[in-house]
Amino acid sequence: MVEGILAVVAHPDDETFGCGGTLALHATRGQSVDILCLTCNPPERRGEFLKASKALGVSEPIIFEEREVVHSTSPIRRISDAIVDRRPRAVITHLPFDYHMEHKLVYEAVKEAIEWAAHTTAYSEPWLVDRFLLMEVNTLIPNPHILVDVTESFDRKKEALGYYKSQLAKFPWGYYERFSLKKAELRGAQADCRYAEAFLEEPLASSSPFYEAKKTENLL
Amino acid sequence: MVEGILAVVAHPDDETFGCGGTLALHATRGQSVDILCLTCNPPERRGEFLKASKALGVSEPIIFEEREVVHSTSPIRRISDAIVDRRPRAVITHLPFDYHMEHKLVYEAVKEAIEWAAHTTAYSEPWLVDRFLLMEVNTLIPNPHILVDVTESFDRKKEALGYYKSQLAKFPWGYYERFSLKKAELRGAQADCRYAEAFLEEPLASSSPFYEAKKTENLL
Amino acid sequence: MVEGILAVVAHPDDETFGCGGTLALHATRGQSVDILCLTCNPPERRGEFLKASKALGVSEPIIFEEREVVHSTSPIRRISDAIVDRRPRAVITHLPFDYHMEHKLVYEAVKEAIEWAAHTTAYSEPWLVDRFLLMEVNTLIPNPHILVDVTESFDRKKEALGYYKSQLAKFPWGYYERFSLKKAELRGAQADCRYAEAFLEEPLASSSPFYEAKKTENLL
Amino acid sequence: MVEGILAVVAHPDDETFGCGGTLALHATRGQSVDILCLTCNPPERRGEFLKASKALGVSEPIIFEEREVVHSTSPIRRISDAIVDRRPRAVITHLPFDYHMEHKLVYEAVKEAIEWAAHTTAYSEPWLVDRFLLMEVNTLIPNPHILVDVTESFDRKKEALGYYKSQLAKFPWGYYERFSLKKAELRGAQADCRYAEAFLEEPLASSSPFYEAKKTENLL
Amino acid sequence: MVEGILAVVAHPDDETFGCGGTLALHATRGQSVDILCLTCNPPERRGEFLKASKALGVSEPIIFEEREVVHSTSPIRRISDAIVDRRPRAVITHLPFDYHMEHKLVYEAVKEAIEWAAHTTAYSEPWLVDRFLLMEVNTLIPNPHILVDVTESFDRKKEALGYYKSQLAKFPWGYYERFSLKKAELRGAQADCRYAEAFLEEPLASSSPFYEAKKTENLL
Amino acid sequence: MVEGILAVVAHPDDETFGCGGTLALHATRGQSVDILCLTCNPPERRGEFLKASKALGVSEPIIFEEREVVHSTSPIRRISDAIVDRRPRAVITHLPFDYHMEHKLVYEAVKEAIEWAAHTTAYSEPWLVDRFLLMEVNTLIPNPHILVDVTESFDRKKEALGYYKSQLAKFPWGYYERFSLKKAELRGAQADCRYAEAFLEEPLASSSPFYEAKKTENLL
Repeated sequence: MVEGILAVVAHPDDETFGCGGTLALHATRGQSVDILCLTCNPPERRGEFLKASKALGVSEPIIFEEREVVHSTSPIRRISDAIVDRRPRAVITHLPFDYHMEHKLVYEAVKEAIEWAAHTTAYSEPWLVDRFLLMEVNTLIPNPHILVDVTESFDRKKEALGYYKSQLAKFPWGYYERFSLKKAELRGAQADCRYAEAFLEEPLASSSPFYEAKKTENLL
Repeated sequence: MVEGILAVVAHPDDETFGCGGTLALHATRGQSVDILCLTCNPPERRGEFLKASKALGVSEPIIFEEREVVHSTSPIRRISDAIVDRRPRAVITHLPFDYHMEHKLVYEAVKEAIEWAAHTTAYSEPWLVDRFLLMEVNTLIPNPHILVDVTESFDRKKEALGYYKSQLAKFPWGYYERFSLKKAELRGAQADCRYAEAFLEEPLASSSPFYEAKKTENLL
Repeated sequence: MVEGILAVVAHPDDETFGCGGTLALHATRGQSVDILCLTCNPPERRGEFLKASKALGVSEPIIFEEREVVHSTSPIRRISDAIVDRRPRAVITHLPFDYHMEHKLVYEAVKEAIEWAAHTTAYSEPWLVDRFLLMEVNTLIPNPHILVDVTESFDRKKEALGYYKSQLAKFPWGYYERFSLKKAELRGAQADCRYAEAFLEEPLASSSPFYEAKKTENLL
Repeated sequence: MVEGILAVVAHPDDETFGCGGTLALHATRGQSVDILCLTCNPPERRGEFLKASKALGVSEPIIFEEREVVHSTSPIRRISDAIVDRRPRAVITHLPFDYHMEHKLVYEAVKEAIEWAAHTTAYSEPWLVDRFLLMEVNTLIPNPHILVDVTESFDRKKEALGYYKSQLAKFPWGYYERFSLKKAELRGAQADCRYAEAFLEEPLASSSPFYEAKKTENLL
Repeated sequence: MVEGILAVVAHPDDETFGCGGTLALHATRGQSVDILCLTCNPPERRGEFLKASKALGVSEPIIFEEREVVHSTSPIRRISDAIVDRRPRAVITHLPFDYHMEHKLVYEAVKEAIEWAAHTTAYSEPWLVDRFLLMEVNTLIPNPHILVDVTESFDRKKEALGYYKSQLAKFPWGYYERFSLKKAELRGAQADCRYAEAFLEEPLASSSPFYEAKKTENLL
Repeated sequence: MVEGILAVVAHPDDETFGCGGTLALHATRGQSVDILCLTCNPPERRGEFLKASKALGVSEPIIFEEREVVHSTSPIRRISDAIVDRRPRAVITHLPFDYHMEHKLVYEAVKEAIEWAAHTTAYSEPWLVDRFLLMEVNTLIPNPHILVDVTESFDRKKEALGYYKSQLAKFPWGYYERFSLKKAELRGAQADCRYAEAFLEEPLASSSPFYEAKKTENLL
């Protein structure tokens, strides 16, 4: 999938809530889009995740099916393997200041994995990610760096959300769909379009001793 | 106005955007509500501010009519004078991580003013504020401490906003009204009501050597 | 114990040092008071802990009897179970900037546990804690939010401390009792009473999608 | 100078030390390059600054000739005026963690100025800067985001440095030239070239209500 | 006074509260001790300050007699002049996290002044301070780096405090003397002596291009 | 080795890169120098490490031979045992803001180990370290506290580096030796000598209830 987007999330449905419109938008244009989900608890959510991913245009998402995200080096290696395998230009994940502890742990693991995936000492065909983007699930970004206009793909985001019936059932008053809709409309108001998704960008060092890319000659 | 709310803002319209529904809600119930605005630039905004304040239920708002908010001790003293004069139980102001430099300066000044207003060495009738709340204008709160249901008073917030014609004119595509509406709907989705306003709460020390209130005997 | 206080501490004796007077004060008035201690090493400290707890007015304290506090999700779940079971209005624990690593880990675990205890998706009868308070053991709070006058209950704190003979024996020069006494006197000097205990308060979000309590209509 | 680089510095010679090679490299290729220096104390340094700027390929640098950098809003407005006038794509300035207080103040002022330069409410022809880069003078960047290969233009950097005779005279043991050389060689070792300059990149929000550019439709 | 201590404080009495015992202890042993106080408001406090300083063993303290501490570069230069004139080995000032805004401003100014006092480009006889220590007035240090046993000199601290009659009068219930005593006893309990004063130490760079001292050859 | 230096590092070669010149300098003068390395992966690096250590003057370095550094309390205890056994006056380790996750974990573990090594309750012969120094491997220190002139011992550092053939082979273009040389020359330029190594110093509390050393009587 060289040059595409990889979203790495803690739980099935985080990808739809956080960046579903953005993934579907790029997929529709034929750009490569991929999803890696670290947990699957209870196991029934796997089927929902596969249907939602397909609606977003991702036919072979990766799911680790762990019970929970833990402090450990093992997910880091599995994520860096996925980065080296899929070769994305942009990686999207959770916010470091998310209220959910597991979301914060995923952010830390992805940041490390991006580093190691680029090391010539760790992989025979390492891969240097170019953009690192952070999305909002329930915790909002105070002042986003980027707003993506997802008006075109918003129906696919809604469709994907609809597959998460085990989650929707937890909120009889419709919180799930309504929060997702209003967040997209608020970001749309800021972006002067109907629906948008917000991101922070975190710059990456591109010049480690262990990387192929080391310098630039033009800042413009 | 003992036991009421005082909102301290940088510019005319910040009070309406940030906490207009909350102010109107309390005013309607007969609780004391007050507004202190530090700047007024250009001077024409004064009239808009007075009309908007009235719509929110505040008949005698304070406006300093400075051109801009500056690093200086003089606004601190003026704000603490207002606190001692109006005797609010809760003070609302801007976020310390607001993207707007003047909003951040107002936060700093209000925090200092709350301290000095309570000093027995500074005022013959000092006043100890009980709650310190921070509101969102354009910068969002990632994970609010408090959501106030403003469904009842939302019409008055809309009316107040309508008086800021000099500001509305800057956004021909209707950004101003639309962002305000969608923010209230998003916070409403989180609060399980139609419209809400979000706040952070910052705890205050209640036991300085210079305060009357010094201790408690019950945490429950 | 609905509506009472739960203190969660790392080691036997932390509860007495940090908030023993406050617990005894509330217990004496018939308010519910509880203690949860995560470790017990060496096992002999269990007996000391039970005697001290009783002196403070807690008849059924919880003790996990682990050897040490570790980075892991298991204590979080055990603490949230205790919160759901005991239903406290206020939770007291260690400072996030305590010099002792295990105290910091307990702070993190308690903060997470308070979140999960309130989730309707995690418990059939979830419980939303109202106040989150942080106490001082050896590390002092620079500028406390709250000082509790413990003059009345100070004898019970001293009695409780006296049961920790295995700890007292480590300090032949009487550090243990003297530091506890002088800290209470210093905080008393600040609170204009004989003995006091100091706390920081950390505000909690009361409006997650997973909580029953979602909004307020009155800030006063 | 649409699409070029603007370096904003506290003192004459900071531009040469921090990004002289980068400026000269771009100028040689015919790209627009500009320098804005806030102070000039003593006044004799003005002549040195003009000669150095010319050596770097900047024929009309801006110099404010203040005695010192102060906490105030006036430099912010003057810098934003310069941004609107010169229309740079990239702005380079000092590090926020520089050991020199005046360098830190310049960083703060430039960050504010970039914001206001883009406001449709502040300028009839506002300008949205695209990249915000931070350079190293005496304080080093722990882990740079970008290394620019300045091997080609390093002679021009050395020539520029040579014009600062009033500064060189303060270091009889040649500190000035030697530190500059060794820093470029160290960064060159990291970039796998002879001489390099290091930068941090700070992402900018591109979607304020007050900006023309508000959204994107492609992250790749 | 080469090799002595200089205490720089915001208000008359801060020196006595924060480090009076430490100053008197060193003065008694014949070591050089000096005090610089930035403000004097109301002017009557000048006389109290001179008497207190004398009791601590400082015959020629410096007092600027400003009304308040302000954000500005002028106090920085006056403090660095004093450092160059008095040549202290250790400088003591307020905490950066003090609750009092003016104390924080003094900390910032002293930190800058220590830097500039050592510059060969700023002074013909520059002076490099060796130790930078931070004391506690009303805000406590959570975990001190250094405890100074002031048992011997505590009577002189009490005597000095007694001269601040204008301040003592503000606290009819004796807060002033009692807090000072209990703080010294608490720190004494930690230090295994009767009375102590607590400090943080902030390491200083000793190797600027502008300093005489640049390197060491022995870390032991 | 009472009174010497102990360097604690994550991987074989970190000690040479970060403080090899400083260790060799002290060893040559007959001062005690020791190295503790936490990992050894792959196992072949053990031989390289022993040769390099010997070149730096350390005949009995400690190597734990773990595969990786993990979040856990077990390394803390092993490090504190080593501190109590070797009794160093100064401990050197990695930077807390190093880009490498394992380096950051080692910093955390060493900081904790220094604390526990001094506890009279943990060891029958506890040891209180006096200085805690942080070195630079690939991540640079922005503004060092200390520069050690290693001109005399630089040949031994180069010799030690040469033994790490498995690492050198990863960089055919000579990055390894060149970065090490240029970093030493840059720090030398700052220290006015040929080669230097840079360190931060982090002050340690010397007055815990559990320490023998509790107070001082002289700050000069």
